[in-house]
Amino acid sequence: MTAVVVQLKTAPPATRRRSGPDRWPEIVTVAAELFAEKGYEGTSLRDVAERLGMLKGSLYHYISGKSDLLVHVLREAHERGVNALAALAQEDGPALLRLEAIVAAHARYVCTESVFTASFIEAHRHLAPDRAQEFVTAERSYRLLIEGLIARGQAEGDLRPDLDPKVAALCLLGFLNSLHGWVRPARRLSIRRICDHAIAMGIGGMRAQ
Amino acid sequence: MTAVVVQLKTAPPATRRRSGPDRWPEIVTVAAELFAEKGYEGTSLRDVAERLGMLKGSLYHYISGKSDLLVHVLREAHERGVNALAALAQEDGPALLRLEAIVAAHARYVCTESVFTASFIEAHRHLAPDRAQEFVTAERSYRLLIEGLIARGQAEGDLRPDLDPKVAALCLLGFLNSLHGWVRPARRLSIRRICDHAIAMGIGGMRAQ
Repeated sequence: MTAVVVQLKTAPPATRRRSGPDRWPEIVTVAAELFAEKGYEGTSLRDVAERLGMLKGSLYHYISGKSDLLVHVLREAHERGVNALAALAQEDGPALLRLEAIVAAHARYVCTESVFTASFIEAHRHLAPDRAQEFVTAERSYRLLIEGLIARGQAEGDLRPDLDPKVAALCLLGFLNSLHGWVRPARRLSIRRICDHAIAMGIGGMRAQ
Repeated sequence: MTAVVVQLKTAPPATRRRSGPDRWPEIVTVAAELFAEKGYEGTSLRDVAERLGMLKGSLYHYISGKSDLLVHVLREAHERGVNALAALAQEDGPALLRLEAIVAAHARYVCTESVFTASFIEAHRHLAPDRAQEFVTAERSYRLLIEGLIARGQAEGDLRPDLDPKVAALCLLGFLNSLHGWVRPARRLSIRRICDHAIAMGIGGMRAQ
């Protein structure tokens, strides 16, 4: 993952014609906030425009409609999340240490990017299959990375050999995303403390005795 | 939890006037199915009536509107789930064994009652605060039960003393409910195998070394 990829992925569509200050990053962030607050179905393009202090018509300089906006929010969510996390899996060292690094980073992402996590978790299913495909593919390859690390951790003797790597990977990713359901930035818990619990509880149960 | 409570909780409201065969249990089940398939916002009372082969007007013999129907679906979900699980916590024995029994039963519930789990997880937030209160209270007391068992397991020396029982309980419940995101009845995995993984991964990480 490089800066070039980031730029490519979050750049607005070619139909954009607006001059003046580029409000594209703000549009994506505000849309993510509203999808998180009111749900995708409960959010209208009028809501997005109002919060931005724009006319609804001006949004069409950037996007062709609400589902187009959702695609861009999800790309941003993926760029900040899955892609960055997957990069951690490529580094050297025992699989158990790679897994710990990924679990900590994933937990931190869910805690700090809760607005994008919400879109990632909930808004997905509102896309037509052909538009959802890129995200399904990216999530599958992230899951396969985790699965591969678990299998390697078993081969290295650090993880319980009786677990099915695929089921364990699904359990682990479900657990990490579920932090979104209760972690609130305003709570007294530090992110560090939450990450500690995520490592203990997400990986502890997989460790060989 | 007794049969009397079950009857009380799932009985239709007093406004019901319909004679003939009692279709109430079927109405609740069909509504739960539709909420799971199309989301609460995406489901209309017309959809519910159509799947039941009833006229929409006939539904008003049973309920006053869609949110009323949701309350009854959630009561049924709670009756089948939280209340039954909470009863397991009251039995005797070491806290670790109680927790294992609850985790297995909770995982089994999510696997077998996926339609009601969906309402439980997603439809909740569509209720006005005063109508949601009974569910918030029941879930809180279930969470406190788990938290109490974790603290007892720590005192009994079976669970890691460095975990915060409240955070660990939130992690555990989030993990168990997250199974809903990927467990499908039609998959090749047996429920038994999923429960084994849920116990290993949900509780294993809390165990004292």
